[in-house]
Amino acid sequence: MKGYYKADPWSIIEEGFDPSMHEASESIFSLGNGRMGQRANFEERYSGDTLQGTYLAGVYYPDKTRVGWWKNGYPEYFAKVLNAPNWTGIDVEIGGEALDLHTIKTVEFRRELNMKQGYLERTFAIYKGENRLEIEVRRFLSMKRNETGAIRYAIRSVDYSGPVSFTPYLDGNVVNQDSNYDEKFWDMEVSKAVPGSAYLMARTRKTGFVACMAMGHMVELNGEHLEQEQEVVQREDYVSNRISLELGQGEEVILYKFVSILTSMNHKPEDMVISAVKVLAGAMAAGFEGLFKEHVKVWEEKWAHSDIVIEGDTSAQQGIRFNIFQLNQTYTGTDERLNIGPKGFTGEKYGGSTYWDTEAYMIPFYLSTARQEVSRNLLVYRYKHLGKAIENAVKLGFTGGAALYPMVTMNGEECHNEWEITFEEIHRNGAIAFAIYNYIRYTGDKDYLAECGLEVLIAISRFWRQRITWSEEKQKYVMLGVTGPNEYENNVNNNWYTNKMASWTLSYTMKALDYLKKTHASSYDTLVAKTGFDPKKEPAIWRDIVEKLHFPMEEKSGVFLQQDGFMDKEQRMAADLDPAERPINQHWSWDRILRSCFIKQADVLQGIFVFEDEFDRDTMERNFDFYEPRTVHESSLSPCVHSILATRLGRYEKAYEMYLRTSRLDLDDYNNEVHEGLHITSMGGTWMSVIYGFGGMKVKEGLLSFEPALPENWEALSFKILYRGRILQVRIDKEKVGIDNLEGEGVDLYLMGSKIHLEKSGSLIADL
Amino acid sequence: MKGYYKADPWSIIEEGFDPSMHEASESIFSLGNGRMGQRANFEERYSGDTLQGTYLAGVYYPDKTRVGWWKNGYPEYFAKVLNAPNWTGIDVEIGGEALDLHTIKTVEFRRELNMKQGYLERTFAIYKGENRLEIEVRRFLSMKRNETGAIRYAIRSVDYSGPVSFTPYLDGNVVNQDSNYDEKFWDMEVSKAVPGSAYLMARTRKTGFVACMAMGHMVELNGEHLEQEQEVVQREDYVSNRISLELGQGEEVILYKFVSILTSMNHKPEDMVISAVKVLAGAMAAGFEGLFKEHVKVWEEKWAHSDIVIEGDTSAQQGIRFNIFQLNQTYTGTDERLNIGPKGFTGEKYGGSTYWDTEAYMIPFYLSTARQEVSRNLLVYRYKHLGKAIENAVKLGFTGGAALYPMVTMNGEECHNEWEITFEEIHRNGAIAFAIYNYIRYTGDKDYLAECGLEVLIAISRFWRQRITWSEEKQKYVMLGVTGPNEYENNVNNNWYTNKMASWTLSYTMKALDYLKKTHASSYDTLVAKTGFDPKKEPAIWRDIVEKLHFPMEEKSGVFLQQDGFMDKEQRMAADLDPAERPINQHWSWDRILRSCFIKQADVLQGIFVFEDEFDRDTMERNFDFYEPRTVHESSLSPCVHSILATRLGRYEKAYEMYLRTSRLDLDDYNNEVHEGLHITSMGGTWMSVIYGFGGMKVKEGLLSFEPALPENWEALSFKILYRGRILQVRIDKEKVGIDNLEGEGVDLYLMGSKIHLEKSGSLIADL
Repeated sequence: MKGYYKADPWSIIEEGFDPSMHEASESIFSLGNGRMGQRANFEERYSGDTLQGTYLAGVYYPDKTRVGWWKNGYPEYFAKVLNAPNWTGIDVEIGGEALDLHTIKTVEFRRELNMKQGYLERTFAIYKGENRLEIEVRRFLSMKRNETGAIRYAIRSVDYSGPVSFTPYLDGNVVNQDSNYDEKFWDMEVSKAVPGSAYLMARTRKTGFVACMAMGHMVELNGEHLEQEQEVVQREDYVSNRISLELGQGEEVILYKFVSILTSMNHKPEDMVISAVKVLAGAMAAGFEGLFKEHVKVWEEKWAHSDIVIEGDTSAQQGIRFNIFQLNQTYTGTDERLNIGPKGFTGEKYGGSTYWDTEAYMIPFYLSTARQEVSRNLLVYRYKHLGKAIENAVKLGFTGGAALYPMVTMNGEECHNEWEITFEEIHRNGAIAFAIYNYIRYTGDKDYLAECGLEVLIAISRFWRQRITWSEEKQKYVMLGVTGPNEYENNVNNNWYTNKMASWTLSYTMKALDYLKKTHASSYDTLVAKTGFDPKKEPAIWRDIVEKLHFPMEEKSGVFLQQDGFMDKEQRMAADLDPAERPINQHWSWDRILRSCFIKQADVLQGIFVFEDEFDRDTMERNFDFYEPRTVHESSLSPCVHSILATRLGRYEKAYEMYLRTSRLDLDDYNNEVHEGLHITSMGGTWMSVIYGFGGMKVKEGLLSFEPALPENWEALSFKILYRGRILQVRIDKEKVGIDNLEGEGVDLYLMGSKIHLEKSGSLIADL
Repeated sequence: MKGYYKADPWSIIEEGFDPSMHEASESIFSLGNGRMGQRANFEERYSGDTLQGTYLAGVYYPDKTRVGWWKNGYPEYFAKVLNAPNWTGIDVEIGGEALDLHTIKTVEFRRELNMKQGYLERTFAIYKGENRLEIEVRRFLSMKRNETGAIRYAIRSVDYSGPVSFTPYLDGNVVNQDSNYDEKFWDMEVSKAVPGSAYLMARTRKTGFVACMAMGHMVELNGEHLEQEQEVVQREDYVSNRISLELGQGEEVILYKFVSILTSMNHKPEDMVISAVKVLAGAMAAGFEGLFKEHVKVWEEKWAHSDIVIEGDTSAQQGIRFNIFQLNQTYTGTDERLNIGPKGFTGEKYGGSTYWDTEAYMIPFYLSTARQEVSRNLLVYRYKHLGKAIENAVKLGFTGGAALYPMVTMNGEECHNEWEITFEEIHRNGAIAFAIYNYIRYTGDKDYLAECGLEVLIAISRFWRQRITWSEEKQKYVMLGVTGPNEYENNVNNNWYTNKMASWTLSYTMKALDYLKKTHASSYDTLVAKTGFDPKKEPAIWRDIVEKLHFPMEEKSGVFLQQDGFMDKEQRMAADLDPAERPINQHWSWDRILRSCFIKQADVLQGIFVFEDEFDRDTMERNFDFYEPRTVHESSLSPCVHSILATRLGRYEKAYEMYLRTSRLDLDDYNNEVHEGLHITSMGGTWMSVIYGFGGMKVKEGLLSFEPALPENWEALSFKILYRGRILQVRIDKEKVGIDNLEGEGVDLYLMGSKIHLEKSGSLIADL
C-alpha cells in the first residue's frame, strides 16, 4: 500500500498499528545476518493473523511433492526453507492480563527498521483503565556474532501500579504454512529449563539437521539489576522462565533476552548444547549494549562499501537502501554452501533457495560491493553441485558428463516440478556459465577457470551440444522445446535468448580451454583426464554449432525474434490491455497468455542487456522499441533490465518509471503479496538499475566504464564500487561525474567514453 | 499376461487362482448393466490385494483437485466415479473359520465370465482337514431389471460335516483408492436390518446423490427351502444377517442373495426405501432362475444385433466378443444423462465419465449395433451440456456464445487440470461437431439439426472463429497453442488435425444453416433468435477462415505436417528405439518426448481416417508411410485407426498387427495396467477396426459401402449391421462377401465399389 510506511532516508517507519497490514509488516521489518533470518513477529503472543518465520541458513526439509499429473523425471521432494523453533517469544502480562496487540488498543504505536544500524524497534503505549504504560522493544540479530540474537523489552509505568510479568521462552512447536501435507518438520531432541536460562534442541525429520537454541535473560528495574524468583516450565517442545514483579508508578522494568542459535551446519550435534551455552554466555557477558555496538560497527563497514546516496528523492533513497540492506542481511558470502533464495529469510514462498536469479541478478551486486570471495563462493556453490547437475541431466536422458543445473535447488538436486519449467527452462545453465565469465572479467581472477570454472563450462557445453539438434529442413542447428526467461511462452522452438546463451557458452568454453592449455598446462591435463574431454572431437562439433545455430529474425524490421513463429501472433501492445485485466496472470487462462504476444519479463532484451557490447545502438533501439511495448513486467526481475536499456537509449522517463517499479516493489507492495515475504533477488536487479543504468557503469574491454545519466528529479547520485582492490567513490550530479580513488592503486578506466587513468588517491571529473 | 485366460469363443476363463493376478481378474470379470457396474470382487472377505468397485451410473463425487502449480481457469474439483456401498458381500465360515481365498488353499479353482449369457461363475474346492467341500458361486446384474443383482452361493459337502455360516451384508464403509485427500465420499442416512432382509441408504457428500440398497436372501438345503434363525446386525454403515447351520456329508446348502440398488438419479430420496423394498420383493418373487432367464433373453437380443463371428482365430473371436460384451454392459443408451467413461464401470481411473472418446470411438459402434436412440442420446447428452460449455469458454476469455466442451466431464463442467490438455486439447470440440454429422449421415435423421444439433454447431463454430487468429506474417489464419490427439506434442501451432476439424466445422455449420433455412424456416428463425446468430456477419468471417486457414505441409514429399515446425525435429523411426526404453512414456522425461518426432496416437492419420473420402489413395499412402513408422501407439486409441488405414492400403500384415494390439489389449494386458480397469472406450475402436477395417464398411455418398479384406489367418468374418431400419447380415470369407437383408425394406448400397440394390429379404454376393 503506497505511503503506508513513512519516507525516511535511513529507516522504514510504521506509525499506528493496522492488523490487516501486520503480515506485510512482518516481512518488511525482517532481520537477518546471513546465518539466519527472522520475520518481524511480535515477541508477545499475538492472536491475529501472523506468519511466524524463523529461518536458519541451509536448514531445509524435503517436503513431499504435490502434483496433479506426474511426469518421468519429476523430483519426489521440494526442499523447503524451514520455519525453525521460535526464539523471539516473550509473553507479557500486565495486571494479570496477557498483552496481545490484536485485542488491546495501543496508542502512539511506532515501528522502525533502522537500516543504518540494523535493528528493529517498536514503541507504543497502552492504558490499563486510566493508567498509562509505555513499551519499547528493540531487537537485532548480531552481524558480528552470527549465532546471537538479542532483545530488550522495556515497560515503563507512567501512572500504573500493579503486577507485570515476562515469560521469555523457546518454542519448538512450529509449522510451515506451506507444508504440502500438513506434516510436522521437526522432532524434539532435548529440552531443559532452569531459572535464568533454558535450551531446546530439535532435529528435522528426514534431513536430520539439528538446531540448538539457548536463551538467557536479565532483568533491570529502574536501571538496577534485579534478582527475581522464576517459574520454570520445561516441556518436550517448550521451555520458559516466568518473572513476575510489581511495577510502581514512574518505574521502568527491562527484560533483556539473549539467545544463541546454532545448527549442525557448523557444529557437531553432540557438542551443540555445550556450544550453545558457551555462545550464550559470551553474549550475556558482552551485554546488550556491547553486542549492539559491535553489531553497528559491522553495518557501518557494510554501508561504507555498498551505500548509494540519492539526493533530491527521499522515496528513491529509501527504496534503494532498503534493497541494499536486505541483500546484506541475506547473504554475507562467508559460506559457500549457502545461497540466496527469492524470499531470502523473509517468508516460506519458493522454498528451495537457489534459482538463476543468483547468477543473473545477485552476482553483479556482490561483485561491486563485497570482497571478491563473496561472489566466488556463489560460484563455488554451483561447482560443488556439479555432480548433482550431471545426475540431473542423466535423468533427462543426457550422457557423457553433460550437466543441467536445477531450476530450483537447496543441495544441488532439482526441486521444481512443472515440466515446462523444470525440463525446459534451461537457459539457467547459460546464466551459470556466464557468471563464471562475469566474475573473471570483473575480478581478473583467471585462476578460477583452472580451479573450478572450466569443469563447469565443459559440462554445460556438453549439455548444449546434446540439447541442440540438426534440422535437415533448415540446414541449421536448432534448440526445440524450451521455455525462455519469458515464462509466458512454453515449449517453444529456438528461443533467441537461450540459443544465444548456448552459443556463447560453447565459444567461451573453447576460449577458456585454449587459455588454460597455454597458461596452465598441467591443470589442463588434469582437467582433460578428470572430465574425459576429447580435445579433437568435442570442440569440433561445438564450433560447428556456433557457426550454424539458428537465430530467428524478423527480416523486415531486423528484430531478433523471441522464438520461431513469434510473428504469427496477434501483435498487440500492453498499453492497450484493459487495466481491469492486469496483471494478466491473475485474469487470463494460461493458454490465452501463451498465445498472446505479451511478455512476462525481459527475454530478447535480457540477452541484449547481457551482451550489450555486441550490439550497436540501432539494434538495441529496434529491439527495445519492439519488445518494451509488448512487455507486461509481471515478474519482479523484469523492470530493472528495461530500466537499464532505457537509460542507454536516452529514454529517461521510461527508465525512471521502470526503476520505481523495481525499487519500491515491496515497500509500496505493487503486487499485494509482500505478506508472503520480500522479493530479495529482484533487489539485486534494482541495484543494477541504479549503478548500471543511471550510474552508467559497465565493463568495457576489461576496464570499468562510466557513462551516467540521472533521472530529472534526482539532484545527485553517489556510490562506492569495489574493483580489483580499489574503492572508487562515484558522484554524479546534473552536470558532472566525479570519481575518487579512495583506496588502492591507480587504474585505467573509461569515463564518458574516453579511456583515462585514475591515479592512486586521485580524482577525475568529467562533464555529462 | 498373455495366455493367462483360456481361449474360448464365448467365455473368459481363469483356471487356478493366482493372488498376484486377482486385481487384474477383478477388472476382466467385471459385470455391468448400463445402470451400474461391479468389479469381480469375491463375495467373501478377501485379505489379499483387491480393488473394491461398485459403480452407479451418474453418481459422482467432486474430489478436490490436486495440482502443483495452479493456473487460472483450472477446475476446483475432479468429478470421480464413486465406489458405492458394497452389495455383493457374503461372509462365509466353514468349521468356525472364515473362508478367505488369500489364506485358504483352493483346488480346481475356475472362474468364468460367460459373455453369451452375461454371468460370472466361480467354482472351487477346499479341504477342511481331509474333508472336501465344493463351492460354486454365480452372479449377474440383471439387464432386464436394471436395479437388481442376484447371487447364488452354493456349498456342497463331499465328506465334510460341521458348521457352515453365511453372512450376507451391505457395507457403506467404502472408500475410493484414488481419493486425492483421503476423504470419505459417503454419509450414511438410514440403516435397518431384520431377519431375512436389510437396507442401507447413503448420501454422497457435496453432490447429495442418494443410493439405497435393499437385500434379501433365501436358503436351500438339499433343494429344500430352509427357515433358519438369523443373527441380525444393524450399524450405521453396515447391515447383515447371519445364517448358521450344520452341513452333513453329501449335503448342499445354497444361499440366494437378491439386492435392489436404487439411486436418486431415478428416484426421490424420500421414496427410496419403499421403492428399494418393492424392487427387491419383485426380484425375490421372480426367483434366481426366473431373473436369470429374462436376463439371458436380453443378452440374446443384444448379441443378435452386435455379434461378430470370426472363423479360424479363436483368440481374435474371444477378443472381439469381450469388447462387444463390455460395451453393451457399459452403456445401453436409455438415459441421455449418462455416458461412457474410459474405464466404464471397471475401475476408478480417469474419474469423470466423458471424453472425446465417446464421439470419436463409441458413436460408430452404437450407430451400427443399437437402435438409433442410443446414439442420439449420446448427442443429446452434449446438447444438454451446451450451457456449461459456453460457461467454460467464458472462463477462458471467449465471448458471444462460443462453446468449449470440457476435456473430461461428468455433468458438463470441466474436470481436468493440466493446462496443455484442459485449455489446449481443443480438437474435442471438433469431434463433438463431427458426431452430429456422422449421426445424421448414418441415420438420415436431419431433423436432429433443428432439434439440437445446429445450436451446438453454431456455438462450436463461434469458438473456432475466436480461437483462430490472423497472421500478418503468413497472410493466413492460424491456430496457435494447441495440443492435438498426439499428446506427445504440447502447445504447438497449427496442428493439422485440429485445423482440419475447425475448418470442417465451420463449413458444415454453414451448410446446415442453409439447409435449415430452406427446409425448416420457423426452426431456423427460432434458432437465430435463441442464439443471436448474425446471418450476415458470422458466416462471412467463417467463410474467410475456411478459405485462408493455414495447413502446414511438407512441400517436398507432400505430407500434411502434424504442426508447424515438425520437420525441424530429428526424424527417427520407432523401430529404431531401444526396446528397453519402450513405452517411452515410462522411460523418457517429458521434454525429450516432446521434442522427439515420436507420435503417441494417430493425429494427421486420425484426420485422414475421419475424412477419408477427401483424399486419394496416394495422399493416404504418403501420409501413412510417413507417420506410421513414427508412431509408438502408447494410447489405446491409436492402433485401431492405423489398422483401418492399413487395410485400406492393402497392408494386411500391419493391419492385423495393429488389430491384435487393440482387440486383446486387456485380455493380454499389453500395458500391465488392467488391474486398474478395462479400456472400455478403446473397445469401440476395436469394433471399428473389424467392421470399418477388415469389413471394409464406410458411408459413401450417403450409402453404406463394403469393400472387405480379411487377415490371412481368418477363414471368415460375419457380423450384423443396423442401418436405417434394416438388419444386414454380412459374411466375408476368403473369396466372397455376401450380404443378407434380414429385416426392413430394400436398400441401395456399394459392394466392392459397385452401386447395387439389395432387395427386401434379398441377398447379394460378390467376389473379393
